[in-house]
Amino acid sequence: MEKINNKSKAIIIIQDGLGDRPIDVLGGKTPLETAKTPTINRLAKEGITGIMDPVKPGIRVGTDVGHLALFGLDPIKDYYGRGPIEAAGLGIELKENDIAFRANFATVNEEFVVKDRRAGRIKSTNQLAKELENIKIKDCKINIYPATEHRAVLVISGEGLSGDVTPSDPLEGNEDDRVKKIKSINNTQKEIKTAEILNIYTKKVYKILNQHPLNIKRKKRKLLPANMILIRSGGKIKKSKKTVDKFKIKAACVAAEETVKGVARQAGFSVHSLEGMTGGKDTNMMLNVKLCKKVIKNNRMVFIHIKGTDLCGHDNEPNKKIEIIEKVDKMIGEILKFIDRNTYVALTADHSTPCVCQIHTGDPVPVLIWGPQVRIDKVVNYDEISCMKGGLNRITGEDFFNIIADLLCINQKYGS
Amino acid sequence: MEKINNKSKAIIIIQDGLGDRPIDVLGGKTPLETAKTPTINRLAKEGITGIMDPVKPGIRVGTDVGHLALFGLDPIKDYYGRGPIEAAGLGIELKENDIAFRANFATVNEEFVVKDRRAGRIKSTNQLAKELENIKIKDCKINIYPATEHRAVLVISGEGLSGDVTPSDPLEGNEDDRVKKIKSINNTQKEIKTAEILNIYTKKVYKILNQHPLNIKRKKRKLLPANMILIRSGGKIKKSKKTVDKFKIKAACVAAEETVKGVARQAGFSVHSLEGMTGGKDTNMMLNVKLCKKVIKNNRMVFIHIKGTDLCGHDNEPNKKIEIIEKVDKMIGEILKFIDRNTYVALTADHSTPCVCQIHTGDPVPVLIWGPQVRIDKVVNYDEISCMKGGLNRITGEDFFNIIADLLCINQKYGS
Repeated sequence: MEKINNKSKAIIIIQDGLGDRPIDVLGGKTPLETAKTPTINRLAKEGITGIMDPVKPGIRVGTDVGHLALFGLDPIKDYYGRGPIEAAGLGIELKENDIAFRANFATVNEEFVVKDRRAGRIKSTNQLAKELENIKIKDCKINIYPATEHRAVLVISGEGLSGDVTPSDPLEGNEDDRVKKIKSINNTQKEIKTAEILNIYTKKVYKILNQHPLNIKRKKRKLLPANMILIRSGGKIKKSKKTVDKFKIKAACVAAEETVKGVARQAGFSVHSLEGMTGGKDTNMMLNVKLCKKVIKNNRMVFIHIKGTDLCGHDNEPNKKIEIIEKVDKMIGEILKFIDRNTYVALTADHSTPCVCQIHTGDPVPVLIWGPQVRIDKVVNYDEISCMKGGLNRITGEDFFNIIADLLCINQKYGS
Repeated sequence: MEKINNKSKAIIIIQDGLGDRPIDVLGGKTPLETAKTPTINRLAKEGITGIMDPVKPGIRVGTDVGHLALFGLDPIKDYYGRGPIEAAGLGIELKENDIAFRANFATVNEEFVVKDRRAGRIKSTNQLAKELENIKIKDCKINIYPATEHRAVLVISGEGLSGDVTPSDPLEGNEDDRVKKIKSINNTQKEIKTAEILNIYTKKVYKILNQHPLNIKRKKRKLLPANMILIRSGGKIKKSKKTVDKFKIKAACVAAEETVKGVARQAGFSVHSLEGMTGGKDTNMMLNVKLCKKVIKNNRMVFIHIKGTDLCGHDNEPNKKIEIIEKVDKMIGEILKFIDRNTYVALTADHSTPCVCQIHTGDPVPVLIWGPQVRIDKVVNYDEISCMKGGLNRITGEDFFNIIADLLCINQKYGS
């Protein structure tokens, strides 16, 4: 029998979009190089570091694909589109043939010209979604599930449907375009049927919502009516083996963002959040500490997801990014106070979102693992440049998960 | 919509066979370590470096396979043999069933014993090739396309043919062997048919060429007659997606060598050369600068290929290799004079050709990327040893192309 250390645990802190490129106003340094992070530097000094590509060097990934790899799933094979991931994020259990789309409540005029893709960032759409319950078109049924603000997930159920249709959403920056006609992509029967039904649905939605008392009230108050549903990114679930089943563990994810919650559920992790965890730049980091302290008791792995760093990259706010990184440093300081000697702490990111680019790039992200049995390298700082010389060298997201799994001794041995 | 920086460009300088091993007469250093390269060292100091394996560590590759990877193609899947690549180099458009072979005009005696595989490096074979136009054997047609000196490409057209036959060429070092009988490799009908036709062709060629006035004249002048065609490396084209289509860009290649031109055409690059660019050790490097300056205007990527370094490796001439590297350094100095702030400059090689081996080896090659947004590492020299500590760590040829594509923001994002 092999000796098994079944007491060790790992807390993995993912700073979304953390990786950056040199910034002029920071003297050619990145926000992570600039931020004052005494606690993280201590972990770097006492731990092992490296750089990581979520999939492969130079490959750009979305938050969803990046997290698939970090959560122990296959970032390419286990990816089935953003729609079903958002559905999982909302806790919707899709049936085998269901197709899920990302959806927005939006504002259109009577000619279906999109005036605002977000309906003035309407606070709640629960009432409106209720009005759209179980809409039947042909042999299919459509439901809309509200998420935060204008966001929602549309699920169409029935036989012979497909997610491979073009979006009705004209997409960001194309306001004042008309609602796009949904079309099949590969001209299959399933796609044609799905497109046809959703185009009928689009007209029906306007009729129902435009006259809804809530929207009439909004118009009177000079607010934009939420009188349209725009869809994009359709897909169906794919049954992949959950991480928790592959590794026979319990794992948890502390996150406020729907996409990350969705991927976490796909991996079989329990998902935890508290009011005040906004998934924004202003989130209350100490709530992460509170939840982590609670859930680490019954889980071998706890992932904590921080969204703010990514948002600062998209918005080109290097100083705000620094501020958030420094808050994360303090958060980690609090976490170190309650963990025991058998606990590993790992830091990484799902991808880079450099301020100078304002988009996700294929640059690798720094990675750091600290804990009882790691081989300690010579690197003493956790940043994009220092970690290039780290003892882990250049690894992938899949490698990262497997290395943690190996430290926890939850991985299978090949051969005997 | 994602913000896209569509102004940035890249100039990629490939020194063929650059990588080397320690050489005694250089005090255990490589030619690249020994060469004085102030401009390249400046780029190393201001850029990011690493080491690169064209395919995988320890795998030896040819110039064709090495360039497939560097040009954004799949070095394994998109490789279809040297014959078709040489054909592409000459601008021959192969049809679907055509089989192309590399061919040599050679000298044989009346017993078909090969006296010189290169027919005394005959200057031009245009007249002789004309004599061999459209030779019909069975239901097939054979043509010979002259390249530089004794080199040529043979194309056989017809149904049911294969490139998988043994060479008639006894190959380098085996002069005084007889012309080899061409045989099928896997004993398929296609191979047997191809071998049979080409064996008939071989005899026919001798009859036509040996009595040709040009060869009679050569014999009188004590020159070796070009009275035989020797073939090797057959293959057919494979329709792979061109790099320029995958990445939706225009790209150019400045090169004098047929193989590299062929791979560049396969990638969809425009190919540029000038008289005086010989593809040899004596090439005029400043013509590369002239062409680069011109073509960079309308292309996102310009590749410049330098052949001399590889030839010096094959000929065990370390000092000549140093001389060529120093000329490349000056060439890069000239290039830096005309590029704008949005241009990246990258340096690498397609493989190693160490002087002490005189053949291609599987040693990694050094790589360097310099430009506006790269993360700068601590390496200050560009050579096989210094780059081992580079911030890119150890990447593959495919990774190299993807990293450049990521800096130019021409790559697709996985997920959302």
